[in-house]
Amino acid sequence: MVSEQGYHIAVVGATGAVGQKMLETLEKKNFPIKSLKLLSSSRSAGIKINFKGEEFTVEEATPASFEGVQIALFSAGGSVSKALAHEAVARGAVVVDNTSAFRMDENVPLVVPEVNEQDIANHNGIIANPNCSTIQMVAALKPIQDKFGISRVIVSTYQAVSGAGNAAAEELRQQSQAFLNGEELNPELLPVKGEKKHYPIAFNALPQIDVFQDNGYTYEEMKMINETKKIMHAPELKVAATCVRLPFFTSHAESVYVEVDGENVQVSDVQEALRHAPGVVLEDDPANQVYPTPLSASNKSDVFVGRIRRDLDNPNGFHLWVVSDNLLKGAAWNSVQIAESLVNNNWLK
Amino acid sequence: MVSEQGYHIAVVGATGAVGQKMLETLEKKNFPIKSLKLLSSSRSAGIKINFKGEEFTVEEATPASFEGVQIALFSAGGSVSKALAHEAVARGAVVVDNTSAFRMDENVPLVVPEVNEQDIANHNGIIANPNCSTIQMVAALKPIQDKFGISRVIVSTYQAVSGAGNAAAEELRQQSQAFLNGEELNPELLPVKGEKKHYPIAFNALPQIDVFQDNGYTYEEMKMINETKKIMHAPELKVAATCVRLPFFTSHAESVYVEVDGENVQVSDVQEALRHAPGVVLEDDPANQVYPTPLSASNKSDVFVGRIRRDLDNPNGFHLWVVSDNLLKGAAWNSVQIAESLVNNNWLK
Repeated sequence: MVSEQGYHIAVVGATGAVGQKMLETLEKKNFPIKSLKLLSSSRSAGIKINFKGEEFTVEEATPASFEGVQIALFSAGGSVSKALAHEAVARGAVVVDNTSAFRMDENVPLVVPEVNEQDIANHNGIIANPNCSTIQMVAALKPIQDKFGISRVIVSTYQAVSGAGNAAAEELRQQSQAFLNGEELNPELLPVKGEKKHYPIAFNALPQIDVFQDNGYTYEEMKMINETKKIMHAPELKVAATCVRLPFFTSHAESVYVEVDGENVQVSDVQEALRHAPGVVLEDDPANQVYPTPLSASNKSDVFVGRIRRDLDNPNGFHLWVVSDNLLKGAAWNSVQIAESLVNNNWLK
Repeated sequence: MVSEQGYHIAVVGATGAVGQKMLETLEKKNFPIKSLKLLSSSRSAGIKINFKGEEFTVEEATPASFEGVQIALFSAGGSVSKALAHEAVARGAVVVDNTSAFRMDENVPLVVPEVNEQDIANHNGIIANPNCSTIQMVAALKPIQDKFGISRVIVSTYQAVSGAGNAAAEELRQQSQAFLNGEELNPELLPVKGEKKHYPIAFNALPQIDVFQDNGYTYEEMKMINETKKIMHAPELKVAATCVRLPFFTSHAESVYVEVDGENVQVSDVQEALRHAPGVVLEDDPANQVYPTPLSASNKSDVFVGRIRRDLDNPNGFHLWVVSDNLLKGAAWNSVQIAESLVNNNWLK
């Protein structure tokens, strides 16, 4: 049951992979809700969704939907955000947008609360939620940046199919069963919906997430590079990324190489910095085979870090293995954290 | 049918994942064989194997097995090589060893024929076949080293389960079906046979291949680091590796960052160097979504390279995506290539 106390909330894209997780997270974290509107494209309108024991009917999102809404959580694709976010703001809502539509807009804060919560204070109605693979990396890098300074990051990702939505997860499930049955695979969606070519994801690895840019990088790689600099307030930080889609359902993993500025930094210093960092859990004990994996990190809010070791050639270089649930900290939970911050700091305006 | 012309060959570990591929490769490449002995542990002795239409019975490998053998291909684990390789050499055989037993022995050449074939000439009876993940990387790096010089390599791997043998592949198959059925997974083998802890590999990623060393690196990572320097004759080369086991059956992929010495090297220069390199196939056309994947590289002898792009911060830095069948170029085919070289160059001694 929604409470008499609380806020008027809308969730746009309520039937999607992230939207479902947003509702679960709002419920689990007991976010104070006075009224809840579940919005979507016309295609999903009419679907019934249960929230705290109450049944809600999904409505088609239109500009008028946002009348009276205080916080609108958007996760229905960039085109929906571009069409409706400003309409929501014009009607008094603050938008927390999980698409890439406004992330690099200089008037829009791009926020991971553990890293740059204060940026929310400067919002002009829209706050952008970063790309999933970026969020977990900066959450792990921030404590290292704060304590030692960092100058360079090279990341190779191991990304779950749910980052491409429920349909991609279903494609992995169907293809996996077909492969085990010795049947033909018929790729129709991955690596990118609507692209010219599709490749099997089952028992495979696809070095393409999102479309290619003219410079040979994918848009996903450029998101990691550009968003990391913006969130960390470090335009001079060197960031390189290779993004790879893999056949698992949930949680992204990342092999991260980072160069620190500090002299004589030890592995134990890096571990200590991460051990006490908000939203980060250190799982790093090689002697006992303790390290995070996508399965172990799934359905949890935190960012898990292990395999911390010094580069054998560069005393300022360290290697990390960073894993987090891409639908929670990478999307829904980070969005709800931003909403909590808006409320708790009286930044709704 | 084995030929009257040719050599007396033994395959040790003939029933294993790599042993099977060695036999397939000897047959496919029509290696000149006068007699063939299939050897194994006592556990697999008695198994019948078909080779060129003739049935062979696997025998238990003993020192006496190698009487009259000219070339012995070993792939039955390090302990078998340590126990029997010198016995084979004492009886006049040249051993091509696919285990890690002798790779870093300074009296043993460690060879990828496209990279350092001439080292075979200096053998003392044993030639080591490098680690699978190392072979494909150095095959891709060598043309770049030759043309521009290289100073630094940082690699994150995406490795298939067959690198851990047939039983690991079967574990992935069974766990995948169990996961799809909603049943419990019961990991018993991966990440490392005989280790204290086992983790699910189905729909997961395990940042551990082989056992951990005291420095926090796994033995697989140290193999990539040390073997690369030895094969490339570059003790000063900086190499860092993170090795990850993934839920696919065959072919390893690698995200490789390489720094070249040459000034003003362009992406097209790197592509050109690789386009004409022996054993390497360039599959690099982002505009048409052309890049290699584990499924596309499987059952092929070559090393496939794509996603070549310049680092956005370091003009001497390049990123590559390198894929090859870990059982063929990574093991069986490289071993047979060494055997071919021994024969063709009259280096059997």
